Amino acid sequence: MPEAQKLEHLKKLAALMRYYILAMTTQAGSGHPTSSLSATELMAGLMFGGIFRFDLDNPEHPNNDRLIFSKGHATPLFYTLWAMAGKLTAAELMTYRHFGSPLEGHPTMSFPYTEAATGSLGQGLSIGLGIALNGKYLDKLPYTTYVLLGDSEMAEGSQWETLQLAAHYKLDNLVGVLDVNRLGQRGETQYGWDLLAYEERIAAFGWETIIVNDGHSFPEIIAAYQKVMTVADKPIMIIAKTVKGKGVSFLEDQNGWHGKTLSPAELERALPELGPVDQSVRGVVSRPEDLKPVEVAPQAAGKLVYQPGAAVATRKAYGNALKRLYPQFPHLVSLDAEVSNSTYAEIFGDAYPQKFFEMYIAEQNMVGAGLGLATRGKIPFVSTFAAFFSRAFDQIRMSQYSEPNLKFCGSHAGVSIGEDGPSQMGLEDLAMFRAILDSVVLYPADAVSTERLVEAALKHRGMVYIRTSRLATPIIYSIEEEFPLGGCKVVRQSDNDLATVIGAGVTLFEALAAYEELQQEGINIRVIDLYSVKPVDAATVLAAAKATQGLITVEDHYPAGGIGEAVMAALAPNPVRLYSLAVTKKPKTGKPAELLDYEDISRSAIVRLVKQIKQG
Amino acid sequence: MPEAQKLEHLKKLAALMRYYILAMTTQAGSGHPTSSLSATELMAGLMFGGIFRFDLDNPEHPNNDRLIFSKGHATPLFYTLWAMAGKLTAAELMTYRHFGSPLEGHPTMSFPYTEAATGSLGQGLSIGLGIALNGKYLDKLPYTTYVLLGDSEMAEGSQWETLQLAAHYKLDNLVGVLDVNRLGQRGETQYGWDLLAYEERIAAFGWETIIVNDGHSFPEIIAAYQKVMTVADKPIMIIAKTVKGKGVSFLEDQNGWHGKTLSPAELERALPELGPVDQSVRGVVSRPEDLKPVEVAPQAAGKLVYQPGAAVATRKAYGNALKRLYPQFPHLVSLDAEVSNSTYAEIFGDAYPQKFFEMYIAEQNMVGAGLGLATRGKIPFVSTFAAFFSRAFDQIRMSQYSEPNLKFCGSHAGVSIGEDGPSQMGLEDLAMFRAILDSVVLYPADAVSTERLVEAALKHRGMVYIRTSRLATPIIYSIEEEFPLGGCKVVRQSDNDLATVIGAGVTLFEALAAYEELQQEGINIRVIDLYSVKPVDAATVLAAAKATQGLITVEDHYPAGGIGEAVMAALAPNPVRLYSLAVTKKPKTGKPAELLDYEDISRSAIVRLVKQIKQG
Repeated sequence: MPEAQKLEHLKKLAALMRYYILAMTTQAGSGHPTSSLSATELMAGLMFGGIFRFDLDNPEHPNNDRLIFSKGHATPLFYTLWAMAGKLTAAELMTYRHFGSPLEGHPTMSFPYTEAATGSLGQGLSIGLGIALNGKYLDKLPYTTYVLLGDSEMAEGSQWETLQLAAHYKLDNLVGVLDVNRLGQRGETQYGWDLLAYEERIAAFGWETIIVNDGHSFPEIIAAYQKVMTVADKPIMIIAKTVKGKGVSFLEDQNGWHGKTLSPAELERALPELGPVDQSVRGVVSRPEDLKPVEVAPQAAGKLVYQPGAAVATRKAYGNALKRLYPQFPHLVSLDAEVSNSTYAEIFGDAYPQKFFEMYIAEQNMVGAGLGLATRGKIPFVSTFAAFFSRAFDQIRMSQYSEPNLKFCGSHAGVSIGEDGPSQMGLEDLAMFRAILDSVVLYPADAVSTERLVEAALKHRGMVYIRTSRLATPIIYSIEEEFPLGGCKVVRQSDNDLATVIGAGVTLFEALAAYEELQQEGINIRVIDLYSVKPVDAATVLAAAKATQGLITVEDHYPAGGIGEAVMAALAPNPVRLYSLAVTKKPKTGKPAELLDYEDISRSAIVRLVKQIKQG
Repeated sequence: MPEAQKLEHLKKLAALMRYYILAMTTQAGSGHPTSSLSATELMAGLMFGGIFRFDLDNPEHPNNDRLIFSKGHATPLFYTLWAMAGKLTAAELMTYRHFGSPLEGHPTMSFPYTEAATGSLGQGLSIGLGIALNGKYLDKLPYTTYVLLGDSEMAEGSQWETLQLAAHYKLDNLVGVLDVNRLGQRGETQYGWDLLAYEERIAAFGWETIIVNDGHSFPEIIAAYQKVMTVADKPIMIIAKTVKGKGVSFLEDQNGWHGKTLSPAELERALPELGPVDQSVRGVVSRPEDLKPVEVAPQAAGKLVYQPGAAVATRKAYGNALKRLYPQFPHLVSLDAEVSNSTYAEIFGDAYPQKFFEMYIAEQNMVGAGLGLATRGKIPFVSTFAAFFSRAFDQIRMSQYSEPNLKFCGSHAGVSIGEDGPSQMGLEDLAMFRAILDSVVLYPADAVSTERLVEAALKHRGMVYIRTSRLATPIIYSIEEEFPLGGCKVVRQSDNDLATVIGAGVTLFEALAAYEELQQEGINIRVIDLYSVKPVDAATVLAAAKATQGLITVEDHYPAGGIGEAVMAALAPNPVRLYSLAVTKKPKTGKPAELLDYEDISRSAIVRLVKQIKQG
């Protein structure tokens, strides 16, 4: 197509896109038309200007370029783009935001061209980083990842984590498209239309920057994308000045129109301003080269070898397990936030450096990147201190809506870490990961169960959290023992158990010590290792509740959302007598045993409570 | 003191400080000596070089300069500083990290010179921003806030949120001291000793930067601090090249020594390297001007006026309440993350613009700043969408260890927000805020209870979360009604209630609708408004459980950590029959009523369950 004709075609596409953006939001009665209108040319130029390469009939093609709307509220534009590509009809667009429609308010996986669910701002770029890491270092394919960014969301620190790390990894296959429309939800952004303010900051972070002074001019936009192709060893940010509400006089650059739709009467006023609209125009998306990654055939995992009774920290077993299991699961990758010598991800990293990514102390970007890698078929294990996953809770929360195969390992759980004090203690991580709808939450007590649970996590498609402990704990299970998800182990029982003590991780050993002590006094207790905190093995626990005078949960975690509540919830509506021992005083610095005692989650607290129950 | 003598004195102080740093960590057997040694001169120069102004006998003096160790692991240095100021004895230093000692592993409030608990990296600067906002815009006092930063923690996005906003607010009373010792926990940082990499980035963010090429040279350090005083309208970052482990040959710039202490034998080798150590040397801290803020006398709050039965969203009542109550609580300030027209914090902001801070879309910094303001006696109300507090969970978690008087309001709770879809729905916020040890969690259903609960939050010293809803709900309470924390309202009851339905927020109205429907069929239910989710009014709920065949909790929240579990936990160990209705399917886009139905938390789900219970 000659240049002039091509530009004419793009303009016709943009006009129809604006028509749909306005019409679909008016019919829905909600949505963000003005945020979509500002980026219409930026996206039309990308998709239909010969830049973006995508096999429309095979969204999973490994060499497709990828497009993520980090400004997820611009779904009217997002869906319209794919309609212009021929993948949605006008009638389908008009189901936008209806219950049951795949065209949800923000991008979700119900729409097949969504790479990852977005809508919480400042996350798309980190997901793109993961996809770009995959392209450059794992699959080694020449696809490019584009991320549409809003200017408001540049206030989010997560963006700057990604900007730092993308430059560190020289991701010249990652392109940000910054839609500087000046206006946020309630007024002007910090920098308004000062493109240079963005350029200065982003360039300082090691990115190539390309300014587009008129973000509605196709020649400028196409030239910018073409320049992108020439950049080596640096990620690229296109910084474009745009007008919010572009195309409709009474919307253009007006405050107060964010997230507002036109009434039918306003729509009638607006549409003629778009000029003649050709309902039949469609765009053509270039196809990618048909390249595929070299796949490594799975091999047998290494043998599990531990001496019974030896003391091995579960965090160390975690690192051992990743290394041992990698041959069987060659899509496994490990990401760690500059603490791999504490989480022991370094055991894997030392063995398979090309499959380990140092993410530095930037947990939000790490989780986003993990999600990005997962979208490309990898099985990322993301690790840091349990406490510091709280830094990325929004990213973890959002991940679930992308339905990823993504694993988390949090080390240094609970007060039993000792002297470092409360800032380093994971005491709300179980609450956090249990709150993810379809998550699995695992909490092994010894090295053997850790290894088996890492294996189970690898075999389970979904989000799994593994909680590990700092202290070395004795190996109590034989290497033949199996640990299905949703199971538990009854490790002590008799026909006349007074109460059932449910421990997990370090508290299992407190329960076992209490068992010994109570035995001396002729009192039997049942002891359960609740290694699967979610789902809970309700049947086994309920049977124990019925066979004994009460359940005692003992956890190195705050009470809310922890093991006690997990057990109660799993057994409901069955009425059971449950006593919860948990961390209920503000933790201090001290030796692990001192702190377990202080918090009344040690063997002596268990013994006291059992005797109290005995006395009735 | 003549200059040369002053330098000699500082050097003697530094030598003794190194002695203590090494000795106290060796006796403790844990801690971070090398991270302390790198910043010894930077901190000694600040405190004892005539820069820092602090009334040692009155840490609460409103015009004291403030010092925050964002690299909280450098406590050996932190405590040693105050020992050099005469506020700790050598013997007290030797209790470092012992159980019960105020000298905890990371700074906590058990030590009286801690401004705010730190230890999760990348938070101190945001706390400092809050303190600086207070100095410049509220108390209008000339104190300066200094924050010691590690180089590793500059990878955290939260830092860049603060850097952006501090420049926006022209905080020339905020000074960062960046200790570039090159080494993180497991190896080199992203930029190593490249001071210019930091300078370029930080200057691009609008800060004045001052390079210190030798961070162990007192003349250079003092000159840098003196230059700080001359900067106007910009925050200042001192970027200093230092050596990790400085002063001990076998520690200096060596990887593998992070968070490691010397054995007694190693200590014996190290100490002579410090040269002669004068145990008697002490530093002098300058005193601040004795200035105090102008205090505004509290006046009567405005009158509470709502029409019974009128529909008002609780989020709107929140804004009304802040505005109405401000005269009575003149320390009230409001911070919002660029969504004040949704949370309705704008009602307050429009009325009292000087007490409202726009924090843009940067929730981590917003919470840190709120904490900083709270340390200076303000009562910050921090607001955004409930979902987006997950972005700042680490800051919220850490806040509790500073024991602040800090309030949070999360709007747009649950699936009942409707079409925007799951990314915007707060569905884990109750779990998150319940997990904070001493938090109060409130969830009003109507405008009157919202106003009363904001008032109760203002009167309660501590961390309070208020959950508000997007939709307008009818006013059901008279303006005389009282809503004590830890209470609940039995809004429907009879002598023959089949079951008790516990609702809160929007689900209370579903319960009331179910009540009407069941009444038509001759079935009575008890209905409780659990406006206080934490603490739960256990006595009232237990009585209802005993009086009826079962409790039904209905919540617009995921099950884990939510209202169902809160009620179970509050009643334990009493066995009760509890049925939990909560959001258990991945939410979609749709109308609020459609989504409540889809998730089985609507009136019809309640009616079905009650009938099921009736059938037994």
